[in-house]
Amino acid sequence: MNFASDNWAGASPRIIEALARGADGIAPAYGQDDLTRELKARLADLFGREVGLLFAATGSAANSLALSALSPPYGAIYAYEEAHIVGDEAGAPEFFTQGARLVPIAGAGGKLTPAGLTATLARGSGSGSAIPRPAVLSITQATESGTVYRRDEISALTDIARARGLKVHMDGARFANAFAFLEKADGNSAADITWKAGVDALAFGLTKNGALMAEAVLLFEPEKAVEIEWLRKRSGHVVSKAWPIAAQFLAMLEKDHWLDLARHANAMASALSQGLVAAGHRLGYETQANEVFAILPKTVIARLRQAGARLYEWPVHGLPADRRPAADADLVRLVTSFATKEEEVERFLALAG
Amino acid sequence: MNFASDNWAGASPRIIEALARGADGIAPAYGQDDLTRELKARLADLFGREVGLLFAATGSAANSLALSALSPPYGAIYAYEEAHIVGDEAGAPEFFTQGARLVPIAGAGGKLTPAGLTATLARGSGSGSAIPRPAVLSITQATESGTVYRRDEISALTDIARARGLKVHMDGARFANAFAFLEKADGNSAADITWKAGVDALAFGLTKNGALMAEAVLLFEPEKAVEIEWLRKRSGHVVSKAWPIAAQFLAMLEKDHWLDLARHANAMASALSQGLVAAGHRLGYETQANEVFAILPKTVIARLRQAGARLYEWPVHGLPADRRPAADADLVRLVTSFATKEEEVERFLALAG
Amino acid sequence: MNFASDNWAGASPRIIEALARGADGIAPAYGQDDLTRELKARLADLFGREVGLLFAATGSAANSLALSALSPPYGAIYAYEEAHIVGDEAGAPEFFTQGARLVPIAGAGGKLTPAGLTATLARGSGSGSAIPRPAVLSITQATESGTVYRRDEISALTDIARARGLKVHMDGARFANAFAFLEKADGNSAADITWKAGVDALAFGLTKNGALMAEAVLLFEPEKAVEIEWLRKRSGHVVSKAWPIAAQFLAMLEKDHWLDLARHANAMASALSQGLVAAGHRLGYETQANEVFAILPKTVIARLRQAGARLYEWPVHGLPADRRPAADADLVRLVTSFATKEEEVERFLALAG
Amino acid sequence: MNFASDNWAGASPRIIEALARGADGIAPAYGQDDLTRELKARLADLFGREVGLLFAATGSAANSLALSALSPPYGAIYAYEEAHIVGDEAGAPEFFTQGARLVPIAGAGGKLTPAGLTATLARGSGSGSAIPRPAVLSITQATESGTVYRRDEISALTDIARARGLKVHMDGARFANAFAFLEKADGNSAADITWKAGVDALAFGLTKNGALMAEAVLLFEPEKAVEIEWLRKRSGHVVSKAWPIAAQFLAMLEKDHWLDLARHANAMASALSQGLVAAGHRLGYETQANEVFAILPKTVIARLRQAGARLYEWPVHGLPADRRPAADADLVRLVTSFATKEEEVERFLALAG
Repeated sequence: MNFASDNWAGASPRIIEALARGADGIAPAYGQDDLTRELKARLADLFGREVGLLFAATGSAANSLALSALSPPYGAIYAYEEAHIVGDEAGAPEFFTQGARLVPIAGAGGKLTPAGLTATLARGSGSGSAIPRPAVLSITQATESGTVYRRDEISALTDIARARGLKVHMDGARFANAFAFLEKADGNSAADITWKAGVDALAFGLTKNGALMAEAVLLFEPEKAVEIEWLRKRSGHVVSKAWPIAAQFLAMLEKDHWLDLARHANAMASALSQGLVAAGHRLGYETQANEVFAILPKTVIARLRQAGARLYEWPVHGLPADRRPAADADLVRLVTSFATKEEEVERFLALAG
Repeated sequence: MNFASDNWAGASPRIIEALARGADGIAPAYGQDDLTRELKARLADLFGREVGLLFAATGSAANSLALSALSPPYGAIYAYEEAHIVGDEAGAPEFFTQGARLVPIAGAGGKLTPAGLTATLARGSGSGSAIPRPAVLSITQATESGTVYRRDEISALTDIARARGLKVHMDGARFANAFAFLEKADGNSAADITWKAGVDALAFGLTKNGALMAEAVLLFEPEKAVEIEWLRKRSGHVVSKAWPIAAQFLAMLEKDHWLDLARHANAMASALSQGLVAAGHRLGYETQANEVFAILPKTVIARLRQAGARLYEWPVHGLPADRRPAADADLVRLVTSFATKEEEVERFLALAG
Repeated sequence: MNFASDNWAGASPRIIEALARGADGIAPAYGQDDLTRELKARLADLFGREVGLLFAATGSAANSLALSALSPPYGAIYAYEEAHIVGDEAGAPEFFTQGARLVPIAGAGGKLTPAGLTATLARGSGSGSAIPRPAVLSITQATESGTVYRRDEISALTDIARARGLKVHMDGARFANAFAFLEKADGNSAADITWKAGVDALAFGLTKNGALMAEAVLLFEPEKAVEIEWLRKRSGHVVSKAWPIAAQFLAMLEKDHWLDLARHANAMASALSQGLVAAGHRLGYETQANEVFAILPKTVIARLRQAGARLYEWPVHGLPADRRPAADADLVRLVTSFATKEEEVERFLALAG
Repeated sequence: MNFASDNWAGASPRIIEALARGADGIAPAYGQDDLTRELKARLADLFGREVGLLFAATGSAANSLALSALSPPYGAIYAYEEAHIVGDEAGAPEFFTQGARLVPIAGAGGKLTPAGLTATLARGSGSGSAIPRPAVLSITQATESGTVYRRDEISALTDIARARGLKVHMDGARFANAFAFLEKADGNSAADITWKAGVDALAFGLTKNGALMAEAVLLFEPEKAVEIEWLRKRSGHVVSKAWPIAAQFLAMLEKDHWLDLARHANAMASALSQGLVAAGHRLGYETQANEVFAILPKTVIARLRQAGARLYEWPVHGLPADRRPAADADLVRLVTSFATKEEEVERFLALAG
């Protein structure tokens, strides 16, 4: 019963097959290989336009590289206060941007709100050049709270940002889960929820979705990729053998394998969430992607752990006051993945009920 | 006939097998997995002492991360003028160290010389704090010229460095090839040619030796790894799934697979080199590892290319005047790898003869 | 009626006299001159111990240089959310520290509170190395709100910081005004309210107090100054002619000239504050140093401006809800200086009454 | 007999008078004052066009700030190997540019040569993005060797640079001495030897010429100054009281006071140089500005020191082999200044004869 994280899961067999195919051959180094070229074409299909493509070893690197492409060193980057770039990347955005400032903004349901963004931007604007220059809005999709920005929610935020001259970054470490949700719920295309909604750069990660290591920055101003390549090189993220990364992306995109895996993870989360609610437990956030935030009695948590369940207690800071756990309970985070089995969910629910 | 680079080669089947084994399981993220732990033990065996272990996505990142651990931002790093960190990493050392200065030093045979190092250090020493503070000596092993520092050569350089308070970095992107050579020629152990010879940090790479992506910084002051982990995190090189990297290293180290692969590559280079000399061609540098630098008539180069050989013309800057090619010839670099086949060498020699 | 800022005031005649004396002579460059040496001795007298002394061109540079000496690039710096380093230095702390993160903390009366500091530190502590490493507490003395930390208030904060391994920085751009207040109110010495209260580095500025340019970092671990000198050099703050800065500091310290000037500025602020309260106006913050924050009707503000008064409306963010101005009023900041004349205060009060 | 450095000299009385005038008044902070505005107009007159003006505390800061405006962090900056930015600024260029690389180039007579620049640029150009991107050419005027680039020499270098897309920086710490020489020798205007000769940014310093602290970046694309102001703020070089710096520049520019001082210093150097040659001593470099490089017997140097002369032995690295001192002699640097007295020169020559 692994609900600790989707990056604890192994990898899809198709990933291994793709690597095995490539291992036998010869490929030019540093991204000049055929698979990388093929991937660019596939991504252009997916997003309905040419995109700049820059691999990175991690989601943190992809985020930070994108931010360094969008913000000057003296820029300010606005993000939800619980965003991964704020709380989980140990200063990588500051390092890559060479000193840009993260400005955390309070939100609701794990998301930024237009009101919160407007208020924060307004507050800083009176001071001439005394604070770092507003430069980037960063949105996480799906959020760290398992929720998903609908297309209109994205546009509402990016409109505010663009009116102020800010660029827009999307942290898509779980973009697959968000897309699977929005495609099903709203019929959105990948373009609808990225560049058509005002996003300039997407950190697109499939590692959490069943790859071994498949992270990239997608730039919707592809000509910018030439300049950013310099930033990438000096950050040590230009792998000499790029084809294994391209091969993983291609294996994922082929016949929507990535979406199948994400749909499965989302479905497992949905089942888990519904089961917990049916058993009388409350949720911290709505379950829309592959993460469930539930408030469970401490005795129940102990029992689950005893039975081998892996999960994390989670900070309650982002919860509204009326959703916070009582003293004898805790907020827990349960992450499902491509590898989550129905039996695991059932067993968990049986124990938690 | 791929002699373009060892990073054009695919990967050893054992690498794929190791990944396939892991893909089926579950492993804690961010290096808390069992394979990473096991690797630390194996490395301790190999080097005869505990080592600090920090994965990185590329050799450039491993080098730069090590340099940032050894040099303050206001430090100076001394290296051979044709070293990879000087000429091929696009400013990564400057980025990771946040502005340390690379000081290029002329050498001989692709190597630094004690006289050259002493002279350069002396020249800077009169100026108080007017130049960056001497901080690190960097040695490449095997060198970019296909030569190998013998144990005494390393010690001669590190003694000079240590007497001045410098730390010592070794770029080991082709450490396997160097070790295979030195073990055979001199009976050295891995310890003999690293920490026992005065090296503080080794960028240890097996990607060029048949892995897909296996690069790490090894610190011979393991307690320092705790601090450097912060630097690594902010550089985006803490992969969430670390086990695939550990698995590749383990597959390589098991039953000396890495050395078998390196011995093969070295043997192929040796055969190529001897064949070219036998055919009357001159060498630019001695062939000790898996790179051959030969001076070939331009007509021969054209003929080889025509027949499908992949190779690079190479700058002659590092050659002594009396070894430089005539106007109708060029220096070419020929790199062999774990995947080079004897037939390729034979066919190349037949064409070049 | 200049109440815009104390850095709008010219300079004390003694400053000019000191510069005139030096202009006629010869002095070794880069801080090797006699006046700089003499100043070190005078500062040791003032603080009751040897201090490391590093000049900088501005208070921002002195703050940032001190922070870069106390925090690693991957560190977190905790400060009041309205502190100068957070809101008025345009990213200088991030630049000098090479990417450390400022963590803003809410407070009361323009000051940090022990509860606020503890809560913020606690919140970050659960995440391993996922956020920048807590490194520095920064206190502003006197605060940007015209209030002064008493000795016990400083100790209460530095005790919390030191228990967590944090170093402590004090922004003393108006240290003279704070010291003049505390000496009078509590009989404190300069040592009492700095190193004896747990401060590691003081950015000590006399520019706002009547010098032309006199800013320095004082380090209470003087041996650290050797290393920080490297950081200072590369930031371009090692002036070739250091004696004019030393001369200004010495002129100020001679016979407590600096304190006389600060006492005067404080007295003018006190008179202004009392006069405004007597006239029925409310204060935003208590007046303890040389800044008055008063809530004035907009009509009164307009009348004052009409009559030539220079002053700034000020953000109300730091005020508790019950002290905020009504719709027809504004919070204004009135800064007095060494050059403020009693007549200016009287005229202002007559107009504001 | 101070020939140690021009920055050991005090200051012109007019500098003190200008400061005294301003000390009595009130001036808006951060460069919004009348004197700064007036200076912009005066500089536009001097250079025959509007210029962007950015004060900095030191020549090192002015150089580095200009370089950071002209080079991306991943850029390469080409300079003479003995240039101040290479050997005397302790990594400031690397810090301000956030990791750009200085590429030292050998020269002749203390100057870069077109051939040397072309060869260095050619060498780097074959490697794709493997080395930092060529970004800036830096020229020192007058050079560290007391020589001056003639207008055609400047253009020959800047033409090569501009053809490659490089920007051009001029280190003008002794621009006054160079201009005084060129105006007299060739009738050049300030425009002729800066922007009309292809220079984009001039670090213009008058501190060595008799000011206390007067250094600025002049940008010949003035609109760029808006962006660079952000870089300047975060480097802590936006002094709150800017009027004292403007006042120093204005006092210098008024009625060509700066040129009178520079002409005097140059004349003193010329007399010193001619006297030494007449006495049979050799020069290391031609004397064109206010520095004399002479080869003196060690016994003579000792005798001069004994008599109170201040001077420095100097590295001979930049000298051609046939100009190097014999074993019993040394190269010495003698710097004259606005404050050098004829009697000092005469006494020195009498002792050296």
